[in-house]
Amino acid sequence: MEPNQRGNATGARSVYFVSDSTGVTAETFGRSLLAQFGLGRRRDDASNVQEHRLPFVDSIEKARAARRAIDEQCDEDGVRALVFSTLVDASIAAELGRTKGLFLDLFASFIGPLERELELKAEHVLGASHADAQTPAYRRRIEAIDYALATDDGQRPDRLREADVVLVGVSRCGKTPTSLYLALQHGLKAANVPLIPEDFERGRLPEALAGLEGRIFGLTIAPARLSEIRQGRRPGSRYAAVETCRTEIEQAAALMAAAGIACLSTTSRSIEEIAATVLQQLEARRGAGRDA
Amino acid sequence: MEPNQRGNATGARSVYFVSDSTGVTAETFGRSLLAQFGLGRRRDDASNVQEHRLPFVDSIEKARAARRAIDEQCDEDGVRALVFSTLVDASIAAELGRTKGLFLDLFASFIGPLERELELKAEHVLGASHADAQTPAYRRRIEAIDYALATDDGQRPDRLREADVVLVGVSRCGKTPTSLYLALQHGLKAANVPLIPEDFERGRLPEALAGLEGRIFGLTIAPARLSEIRQGRRPGSRYAAVETCRTEIEQAAALMAAAGIACLSTTSRSIEEIAATVLQQLEARRGAGRDA
Repeated sequence: MEPNQRGNATGARSVYFVSDSTGVTAETFGRSLLAQFGLGRRRDDASNVQEHRLPFVDSIEKARAARRAIDEQCDEDGVRALVFSTLVDASIAAELGRTKGLFLDLFASFIGPLERELELKAEHVLGASHADAQTPAYRRRIEAIDYALATDDGQRPDRLREADVVLVGVSRCGKTPTSLYLALQHGLKAANVPLIPEDFERGRLPEALAGLEGRIFGLTIAPARLSEIRQGRRPGSRYAAVETCRTEIEQAAALMAAAGIACLSTTSRSIEEIAATVLQQLEARRGAGRDA
Repeated sequence: MEPNQRGNATGARSVYFVSDSTGVTAETFGRSLLAQFGLGRRRDDASNVQEHRLPFVDSIEKARAARRAIDEQCDEDGVRALVFSTLVDASIAAELGRTKGLFLDLFASFIGPLERELELKAEHVLGASHADAQTPAYRRRIEAIDYALATDDGQRPDRLREADVVLVGVSRCGKTPTSLYLALQHGLKAANVPLIPEDFERGRLPEALAGLEGRIFGLTIAPARLSEIRQGRRPGSRYAAVETCRTEIEQAAALMAAAGIACLSTTSRSIEEIAATVLQQLEARRGAGRDA
């Protein structure tokens, strides 16, 4: 079933993410909803939506300008734009709500039930969800990013003791993007250490990992997929050959199994999915630690 | 005004983010809503909520287990937990919905209006919002991360022509976290180039930036804040002295002004806010380019 494809020149539905702050929430939530209708970027890389981000709409005047731009687009497209809004100020939201587009006020439905439960009025603070750039939590996040960069690819074995999470696995199995994501989005000090032929010959994990077992997470990947990724980096090399990949993956799996490290396959998982799984397991381990 | 602080042992309200996928949407959206009630981590680093992430709840059995865990917590706390759910399957959501906690079904309110507008039934695809790990868009994102790492801190001037965005500014003004965020979250090839005393002596931007004007964004920062950040890295150094910081910032501002590069202050902006502003300006420049 295809979505209603009346639309603009490119046949795509116009979609707006409007916020008084960065628009991250409107975009994340809006995209999740659109995915339920098969709207968004598809496997063949075509997209059946035309996205527009309108951040920092924090006054009636800006809301009016946003509404005009959206209405013009609706006229041009001959079909209503979809407008995902996280405007918290009621009068600013009301101004945008006059749009010809389908106005979806993401906050309004939930403020009421929360007010009743919390016995408290919402503060309607514009941009209240900002990570405040001067809080201790924010500073830890910046430190975590510095840490993930400094320790990437096993660069600083002397700093592994500081890690919240250490990812291990063969070269190009997904360790670096996952480490950076855990640092940026969750403020975790995430290091990563590659398992290399030298480790396989010795038949042991790198020395630097000793004593860190509770924080280590193994990543693995299908040989064909790894080969494809390595081909992108060093085409035609022995390093990228599927046979090399298969052998390294098997040897890494054996090393990790011997050390009691569970392995997560990255073959068809996104960075978000790998990170969510790592966090889930980390929480379970910490819980088990507390119960013990 | 303080939120209702009956709560668990630590006086914090229990909050659950429940999803059939990673939980990123539930968490982003739930935190935005909570911020409207002053709930979350505060400036003094204490938090008045106890967050729990329950990802990959994709069966009735898992929903039942999640509900039990939440209900036990409610009993223990003596106050209802807040449950933010992005479960898309109606029967799985219904099972969780029986919780003693306040159940907030983030999708349900919006599916109806979207179905009517799109003349289409929602597909209720579990985890439909996953970035599929094998799509071209996902591959570009991984490439963008590799690119941001390779070109960080001016490391690869020869690769700047590939950039979508080039951030410039003095050392430690926020270039690296912003580049990584733009790559990870938006798939943009974001490079960054530091402006250093050598450039100030020559009185010119680094040669490698020539011809890239449309893609360059300047970052600046208050001297006191920069000094504080640099002190964290090299305490007591000349590099971290507020006078050094002030001089560098002024010279950098002069160089950028001479080159017609607008500057964005990172002093009290989060990574998300800096990135949102860069994206907004990039879109405006591209629009201006099209109109010209």
